[in-house]
Amino acid sequence: MKIGLAQFDPTIGDFDYNCSRILHFTEKARDAGCHLVVFPELSLCGYPPRDLLERQEFISDNLRALDRVMAEAPDIGVLCGYASPSTRDCGKSIQNTAVLFEKGIVLGQVHKRLLPSYDLFDETRYFEPGAETRPLPFRGRALGITICEDIWNDRVLFPRRIYPVDPVAELAAHNPDIFINISSSPFDIKKADFRRHILSYLATKYRRPFVYVNTVGGQDGIIFDGNSLAIDPKGNLVVQAADFAEDLVALDTESMNGDMRRVSGSREEMIVNALQLGLKDYMRKCGFSRAVLGLSGGVDSSVTAAVAVMALGAENVLGVLMPSPYTSKESVEDAAALAESLKMRTVTVPINDVFCSYLQALAPHFAGQETDITEENLQARIRGNILMAISNKFGHLVLSTGNKTELAVGYCTLYGDLSGGYALISDVPKTMVYEIARHINSKGAVIPQKVLTKAPSAELKENQKDQDDLPPYDLLDAVLELYLEQNASPEQIIGQGHDRDLVRRIVQMVDRSEYKRHQAPLGPRITTRSFGYGRRYPIAHGYRTSF
Amino acid sequence: MKIGLAQFDPTIGDFDYNCSRILHFTEKARDAGCHLVVFPELSLCGYPPRDLLERQEFISDNLRALDRVMAEAPDIGVLCGYASPSTRDCGKSIQNTAVLFEKGIVLGQVHKRLLPSYDLFDETRYFEPGAETRPLPFRGRALGITICEDIWNDRVLFPRRIYPVDPVAELAAHNPDIFINISSSPFDIKKADFRRHILSYLATKYRRPFVYVNTVGGQDGIIFDGNSLAIDPKGNLVVQAADFAEDLVALDTESMNGDMRRVSGSREEMIVNALQLGLKDYMRKCGFSRAVLGLSGGVDSSVTAAVAVMALGAENVLGVLMPSPYTSKESVEDAAALAESLKMRTVTVPINDVFCSYLQALAPHFAGQETDITEENLQARIRGNILMAISNKFGHLVLSTGNKTELAVGYCTLYGDLSGGYALISDVPKTMVYEIARHINSKGAVIPQKVLTKAPSAELKENQKDQDDLPPYDLLDAVLELYLEQNASPEQIIGQGHDRDLVRRIVQMVDRSEYKRHQAPLGPRITTRSFGYGRRYPIAHGYRTSF
Repeated sequence: MKIGLAQFDPTIGDFDYNCSRILHFTEKARDAGCHLVVFPELSLCGYPPRDLLERQEFISDNLRALDRVMAEAPDIGVLCGYASPSTRDCGKSIQNTAVLFEKGIVLGQVHKRLLPSYDLFDETRYFEPGAETRPLPFRGRALGITICEDIWNDRVLFPRRIYPVDPVAELAAHNPDIFINISSSPFDIKKADFRRHILSYLATKYRRPFVYVNTVGGQDGIIFDGNSLAIDPKGNLVVQAADFAEDLVALDTESMNGDMRRVSGSREEMIVNALQLGLKDYMRKCGFSRAVLGLSGGVDSSVTAAVAVMALGAENVLGVLMPSPYTSKESVEDAAALAESLKMRTVTVPINDVFCSYLQALAPHFAGQETDITEENLQARIRGNILMAISNKFGHLVLSTGNKTELAVGYCTLYGDLSGGYALISDVPKTMVYEIARHINSKGAVIPQKVLTKAPSAELKENQKDQDDLPPYDLLDAVLELYLEQNASPEQIIGQGHDRDLVRRIVQMVDRSEYKRHQAPLGPRITTRSFGYGRRYPIAHGYRTSF
Repeated sequence: MKIGLAQFDPTIGDFDYNCSRILHFTEKARDAGCHLVVFPELSLCGYPPRDLLERQEFISDNLRALDRVMAEAPDIGVLCGYASPSTRDCGKSIQNTAVLFEKGIVLGQVHKRLLPSYDLFDETRYFEPGAETRPLPFRGRALGITICEDIWNDRVLFPRRIYPVDPVAELAAHNPDIFINISSSPFDIKKADFRRHILSYLATKYRRPFVYVNTVGGQDGIIFDGNSLAIDPKGNLVVQAADFAEDLVALDTESMNGDMRRVSGSREEMIVNALQLGLKDYMRKCGFSRAVLGLSGGVDSSVTAAVAVMALGAENVLGVLMPSPYTSKESVEDAAALAESLKMRTVTVPINDVFCSYLQALAPHFAGQETDITEENLQARIRGNILMAISNKFGHLVLSTGNKTELAVGYCTLYGDLSGGYALISDVPKTMVYEIARHINSKGAVIPQKVLTKAPSAELKENQKDQDDLPPYDLLDAVLELYLEQNASPEQIIGQGHDRDLVRRIVQMVDRSEYKRHQAPLGPRITTRSFGYGRRYPIAHGYRTSF
């Protein structure tokens, strides 16, 4: 049997579009001789629809879309994901379902058993779990079908399991010929390797081939990397779809051969591809074609601009230089050099007159007060307003250029540099921003070398340097990874060799800036734990552990 | 037996403070002759701690706090809520638990069975549900203890149940002498009545007294109203605690008599009390003592100012008048009259010079472009920046003054009037803002009459009136309530007599402004469905149902 893995990029709730793409890929699969084509989890409605799932018209439209696909699809088997009304008299009203159909007839359905409720997942909010999992017969084969999380609960791989059942083990007991998992599994820099490890382990353990079809695309702050694949019963990778792009690949289950695409070769390449996809999809799905960002001559705005130009084309990215008296000549030169090498258009809007007019307006009320963070924030906010004005006037999406490290410790200004619709590198720690910059430059010098070597500065007062206000970035990022991504306690972090006072200072900065993150623009997640939906902290709280 | 209902206002994670309060109320209860004192759900750590619950040091600190309370409490029975480590080898690592202790000895524990995962609740994200519920013996009585949601699943009251078990029915089969429920149940304007109805129904159905102890206080966007109470087996209210304030009341289980406090008499009084509590607690828990807001002379900023003065005292509220050439003389007079009647201090910061400096800075790039929404937003953003500058300089919390209707349809400016730390009336629909204003005035004229009668205007361009840009507020709010709170489909809304084109226009406005709400400040929830945590929509999506 030949199975097509149709890794596509749905738009949430755009049923016409999703139907057309499913029909398109089904025809392509039929033309390629496939007997069955497999689409990702909830591919009919897109993932995650969040509270749209609570709207009954959304569920009805999703059912109508399934009717249409079933009526119009060519005559091969199709396995695809949709939201099905629960038939139980108790519990949530819908289920996360995989439906197998051919020639307009439903051959079987499987409901997702394990509903993740952690990190950025909220599935227990919407879905009733499936009660059992049995193989579905298809053309003489028994297909062992599971949905995403269903394969993430093996006793050996996950010693502390969060679910009492293992649907794969349950299926295995019913002797399927092949396992198929449909997923909408978010990208992070460690995910692809881990996923392949799990699938290899399961294929080997149960001595069955394993087909895995994942969504691709950007959805708000989530990137789906695709990376669909098939593993043979010995654990070998025999089919590999592209990463960060739609793709159709096929597995021949007799020969255990199939298509092998190239995927990202390094972590940096992966990140750059993820950021590009996230940005492109956010803009397309929100109806933007052009982006605008401030160019400071620093590494953050340089990397943001470079990735935006790679994703959207130089003609669609506008750089705005907004110098103040604190802006060095070098910064202006570096920003101009960057724009030139990226071939992007820039405009210059000096902020000093506006800044002075604010100071004058506020002077009667600020008399006798010292200059402080107020004046620094004002400059950042003027720049935010100018970018928003350009956005309002010409319809550009404003790209916020802050990195994860700044957002973590609150080294950023609400309504200032935190203005924007999409914060492209907001989940990229500062040290990784440099790595990405070097990766981008390794393919031809793009970002001026000076940008990578000079000391980072916000240039909001005389002779300001980040390192006067913050711990060294390598230490800071190391502690932040432990505290934020691994959820390590301060004592554990200190136990790993970090200075107690340094850890105390960093933890305080993180805890005190939650209110800024609450109003920050979204951006693509690339680490194992990002801010936003994946990390939900109270703003008003009094928790200070003693250490 | 005499039972104390200790309705207190914990601060999340401030274990020292929460311990002291629990000990204080326990002593008070002992002094009042109580044999048992009951605290709300998760009262030891505060509710909801969100992802703090994923930090092991938080759980350890919470256990240490329990040890301290057990060691120091006077010798009466204490029932209180905390996060307990799960003893199962599978599932989430903690449980939402009620512990009953006396004289330093644990007499029993009950784990929450029903974990809400809808609206603003995420309990399946953190907790492993309890497996069974049995009465706990205490001084010869059997206490039928449940936690919050556990009582919200009766077959008759909830025909479509979302959980397969009913812990109250299960407990009833074991013949308890009394039911006790500890809750952290969020306020909305319909909640208190509904809660009393449920409790009366259950007391009558099982012919047992029912004691209900609820948290009080503001926690980010949630208000807990307190309203603890006891119902006798005939369904009569026999104990009533205050609403929106800490309280200790007692029930004598022999005589079925107890304390009866006055609670809010009208919906408007309830809302004003809720808003005051929300603001006070947000400020206290975040460490603010003073607030600043813009006074436009309109009803929204007038109501916000009046409530802030009631909550914080006039000396702690600063009003800022920020007139532009579009600001009418009447608006300035109305704002000044309001401030005078509230006895609050104001400063005036005209924005025209700053506005002109922006226009000048942008002129080279805006040449040939029409004046449009850009210039309106700029004015709103200048005002936002001025308020933030005052906040930065003097440490005031900025109160955002927008109402729910504006936020719903996007009639507000990101980084402009959406600037602020706390959006006091952001869950109050415009028509209800007027009702609240009239209620406030009914206790002595405070808000100038003209503010209540003139046509609302943003005054961002010549002769602008809200009603030129928006449907009439009464129709708008009626449709919004159906669409947002009742989740009615457009066809259902039209079926209730609303004009098809009007509904289409409103639904479009709501759907297109999700990105603004994503970056909006939080504010206290008073309706049955607020924006923020309780309503989670994707920003990038293509869902447009046809109607």
